[in-house]
Amino acid sequence: MSVTAASGFAAAGVAAGLKSSGKRDLAIVQNLGPLDAAAAVFTTNRCKANPVLWSEQVISDGVVKAIVLNSGGANCYTGARGFQTTHATAEAVADRLEISAGDVLVCSTGLIGEQLDLDQLQAGVWDATLALAGDDAESAAAALAAAEAIMTTDTRPKEAVHVSAEGWTIGGMAKGAGMLAPGLATMLVVITTDAVLDSGQLDTALRLATKVTFDRLDSDGCMSTNDTVALLASGACGIEPGIAEFAAALTEVCQSLAEQLQADAEGASHDIAIEVVNAATEDDAVTVGRAVSRSNLFKAAIFGNDPNWGRVLAAVGTTDAAFDPYGIDVAINGVQVCTAGEPDQPRDLVDLTPRSVHVHIDLNAGEAAATILTNDLTHDYVHENSAYAS
Amino acid sequence: MSVTAASGFAAAGVAAGLKSSGKRDLAIVQNLGPLDAAAAVFTTNRCKANPVLWSEQVISDGVVKAIVLNSGGANCYTGARGFQTTHATAEAVADRLEISAGDVLVCSTGLIGEQLDLDQLQAGVWDATLALAGDDAESAAAALAAAEAIMTTDTRPKEAVHVSAEGWTIGGMAKGAGMLAPGLATMLVVITTDAVLDSGQLDTALRLATKVTFDRLDSDGCMSTNDTVALLASGACGIEPGIAEFAAALTEVCQSLAEQLQADAEGASHDIAIEVVNAATEDDAVTVGRAVSRSNLFKAAIFGNDPNWGRVLAAVGTTDAAFDPYGIDVAINGVQVCTAGEPDQPRDLVDLTPRSVHVHIDLNAGEAAATILTNDLTHDYVHENSAYAS
Repeated sequence: MSVTAASGFAAAGVAAGLKSSGKRDLAIVQNLGPLDAAAAVFTTNRCKANPVLWSEQVISDGVVKAIVLNSGGANCYTGARGFQTTHATAEAVADRLEISAGDVLVCSTGLIGEQLDLDQLQAGVWDATLALAGDDAESAAAALAAAEAIMTTDTRPKEAVHVSAEGWTIGGMAKGAGMLAPGLATMLVVITTDAVLDSGQLDTALRLATKVTFDRLDSDGCMSTNDTVALLASGACGIEPGIAEFAAALTEVCQSLAEQLQADAEGASHDIAIEVVNAATEDDAVTVGRAVSRSNLFKAAIFGNDPNWGRVLAAVGTTDAAFDPYGIDVAINGVQVCTAGEPDQPRDLVDLTPRSVHVHIDLNAGEAAATILTNDLTHDYVHENSAYAS
Repeated sequence: MSVTAASGFAAAGVAAGLKSSGKRDLAIVQNLGPLDAAAAVFTTNRCKANPVLWSEQVISDGVVKAIVLNSGGANCYTGARGFQTTHATAEAVADRLEISAGDVLVCSTGLIGEQLDLDQLQAGVWDATLALAGDDAESAAAALAAAEAIMTTDTRPKEAVHVSAEGWTIGGMAKGAGMLAPGLATMLVVITTDAVLDSGQLDTALRLATKVTFDRLDSDGCMSTNDTVALLASGACGIEPGIAEFAAALTEVCQSLAEQLQADAEGASHDIAIEVVNAATEDDAVTVGRAVSRSNLFKAAIFGNDPNWGRVLAAVGTTDAAFDPYGIDVAINGVQVCTAGEPDQPRDLVDLTPRSVHVHIDLNAGEAAATILTNDLTHDYVHENSAYAS
């Protein structure tokens, strides 16, 4: 169900011809109200794509009535013409839905430095608005079509739903299989809810949720130019949830989508959770986890099922987090391979054949903790990213 | 010739059994004087190997009479016993050469978290001291043997020599094929000179030289725990050079060794020079160059001969250097693919089939510049680092 699970939303996904494969490549999600509150977070990359530059303006008043997303081109570093394409796409959606273009978010994903074909986009918008479905028998199929339309190298669509005991619902869809890195939001994600919340509450909840989910997913250390996480509230269920309860449920949905992104990361053969405990601060824990997640040597070793814990410590040592370099403990998949900077259990005891890998780093420097999700560095990653150009 | 090219030095390289292959794995370089001045720089990784902890003490008085180096084990994260091994190795060299152990630098390279065999080290030291050769017909062979003894995944020894018009000489050897990253010194390098210089002068010259050579080589973004660049002066030629002239010659030797390291980087198929120009500061230029050198997406694209300049800009955008994100120009191998944030020449014009790749990034923000050397991300890099455990 994803984006149409919550009442008050319609979705569609169509093939506009932007992908040479002929697959679906344009999606629209419409908020049918009664509310039109929204929040969004964007890539912190300073080189932002045109749709991000546009959407940052749209979100500033907290009102979003529709979002249009395309794969098949990032519309980044395409200059003034590229910005016009984004603007014209929003106008096309606005014309069809009889809303203002200033209330239409635009998201694009694909190759940087190539112009999108505006004729294809406009025809796709026309088709998508005709196909919009929500609150009816076709809504699940429509939501799936939308989730498919934003896929690039993804092998499967990503959807998640949370239904609260009180009766409000959160649903989300995501794309992303490479360029997953922090700075926030490094994928396209649309989340909808029928709860009654204003844009300030949505913004608070969204930042709480993304900080500990998408922001801690660092598949390959590369930060995208386009990525966006948008949260739209229709208020259609008429229930006003507690903000803490809502944020917790939203975090659950975001975590599910983040784990789906990790599980589908380009070419990966292991999903690695790097849990840093007993750090002086949460920032230290994140810094240490991220340093390990960006060590190509460590990631290649995991690909080879080699529990090379020295590469974990070598990466930890590059950070300025608080710790005694010779007071760190490391366990891999439950085997304590290093205690206080000396070898402990034999590394041969570590079984790295499962896809799921757990690296536990005890800094012995405080009480804070954080977990970073990453993937291994594989032949297939290199292959997909050397040949990828769509 | 390398480390015996300058007069007043003897070298040897022997097989001590530390490498399972039976190849040479232990080297000694002895300074025969009359001077015994030295300087050294070490990894900035906070997780330092035992030989680095030892050698930092040795260098503190600026006096070094010999250096002993081994491959086949890093002696890092091996605790108090590992430090004892380093100490005992220095003592063995001191006994044989009738010097103080406090004047013996120790360097190790190989796997982290495994103890070295002290009996093998001591026997190797005995053999190496017997084989020491310098200032004679055998000295070139001895220097080559030493350069071979420090190899790990290197496919060839690295040597460089500079003979000044005045009559003084600088010679150096290096090892390193992976874990080349900055923070300084991410390899083992021994450089000798017969010029008359004190340890303060050597330190000044060495830091000037390494800052623009080894420190700008970032093959895979991973910083080692063991790396050391040592410079020893014998004064044997009796000539006192100008410090600027000496530093320039030393930089030339370091640059030659750095380029040899880049050319032999594990699994690489392209040597990439990322030249950043018109930066506001030299630090900005280095920061931008390093960000690009650490983008796996960019590096995988170069492996695939894909001039994907969007990945260059996406990496530039992650930095806090001064620039207008939409005012950057990018050229790859002489083809201007991006001007002021818009596509310029077609990317298909870029020929990436040669091993040597030149990426030119104009930030249009000032007058400073820097070049970072890196390599592409290849199937062979993944393979070597997934299987590598020696």
